[in-house]
Amino acid sequence: MSEIDTLQDRFKHIRIVMIGTTHPGNIGAAARAMFTMGLQRLVLVQPEAKFPSGVATARASGANKVLDDTQVFDNLSDAIADCSLVMGASARARRIAWPEVQPDECAQKALESKGEVALLLGREHSGLNNEELEACQYLVRIPTNPKFSSLNVASALQVLSYEVRRQALMQAPPEVEEEPHIPVDSAEMERFYAHLEQTLVDIDFLDPDNPRLLMRKLRRLFHRAEPNISEANILRGILKAAQKSSSTP
Amino acid sequence: MSEIDTLQDRFKHIRIVMIGTTHPGNIGAAARAMFTMGLQRLVLVQPEAKFPSGVATARASGANKVLDDTQVFDNLSDAIADCSLVMGASARARRIAWPEVQPDECAQKALESKGEVALLLGREHSGLNNEELEACQYLVRIPTNPKFSSLNVASALQVLSYEVRRQALMQAPPEVEEEPHIPVDSAEMERFYAHLEQTLVDIDFLDPDNPRLLMRKLRRLFHRAEPNISEANILRGILKAAQKSSSTP
Repeated sequence: MSEIDTLQDRFKHIRIVMIGTTHPGNIGAAARAMFTMGLQRLVLVQPEAKFPSGVATARASGANKVLDDTQVFDNLSDAIADCSLVMGASARARRIAWPEVQPDECAQKALESKGEVALLLGREHSGLNNEELEACQYLVRIPTNPKFSSLNVASALQVLSYEVRRQALMQAPPEVEEEPHIPVDSAEMERFYAHLEQTLVDIDFLDPDNPRLLMRKLRRLFHRAEPNISEANILRGILKAAQKSSSTP
Repeated sequence: MSEIDTLQDRFKHIRIVMIGTTHPGNIGAAARAMFTMGLQRLVLVQPEAKFPSGVATARASGANKVLDDTQVFDNLSDAIADCSLVMGASARARRIAWPEVQPDECAQKALESKGEVALLLGREHSGLNNEELEACQYLVRIPTNPKFSSLNVASALQVLSYEVRRQALMQAPPEVEEEPHIPVDSAEMERFYAHLEQTLVDIDFLDPDNPRLLMRKLRRLFHRAEPNISEANILRGILKAAQKSSSTP
């Protein structure tokens, strides 16, 4: 165990977030899967499974460091508040198309990000719900057999972690960027979306009784833009001016 | 389940051969892992685990077709007698160097082969022995964390099967995307920026005598977002609503 993983520093900004996991064995298998590829940061959100548990530890098969450091959160927003890039694993086709990336693109984006990165994995049977989906800039779709797409959650994580390691091995050391673009984190984006929604109601553009589809489309657009802090401040300033200027009481 | 895996014909010459597997759960997990990627042919050689077994079936999670068709052999030579390409998964560095391929090369070789192909997976704790190794033209080494290379046998199979599917998809003509993202053209973006600038003046956010820097920052942001026509229409609608709502004459 004296060997060093020379890649581990390139992965330390990446966290794996498992939401509502039912089976403790899957938590252990996930820890093992990610650690074989050098990923160490596991976060559980509202696990249904008991944690810590002997079953998880047994299935981790020695990846105890990952389980020892695993954090547990009551809600997703807290778990990803400081993240500027959030991607969710998705098996299902969605009614509203969401930006989709292949596992290799997901790995590249995670490795290139200057901020904190979260990779979300949903419940064993139902995956991510709509609210969780909306927290994601991208969905990662692992290509599967259309006749049998039932990928185990730890197996999905194995594939994604493998891609992170594979891409890191393929890449040369990153070049120094003169003026890095640092997107704001999820918490700031959520405040922006709340402010945007309220403003759209104030200027009579949005029916508060039926905001969902429009807000989702706007989220998709602004997620893609990845505003930095200066841009986010400008956008917030515009919203304030529109509210102030609005004649609607 | 009426969907068809259009790739399955490309995989039908590939068999997965598990040697001396100890845990029935790993046989079931392996069936599930390979079937999610469209591989259907599983062969067991001298399994230590009871087979068929309820544990394997439970872990297969619906990949029953694979388990139903699984063949069991007493020895490796019979299991691979008709194969012209045999590759073995290997976690360990070997004393005697053997031709090694990465998972992606392994998948390419398997797909390109005109004959029958076998991919061997060894025992949970000891892998392939020397005699089994010598039956292989190539060893496949999945890159792992040097501090923790303990990849579960079904997880290793998940990675290798994923690579087979990924390589096949890369070679196949691209699938039709249901709703491609087509950004609007420059002319439309210019109309949007003009409308945006006028609105920002109307709501008293922008000083018309000195608009340059702010508009440049907003251009950079919206350029990055690459709005499509539906999104551009939403943005124009918001601008109109803000203008209409504005109390400034």
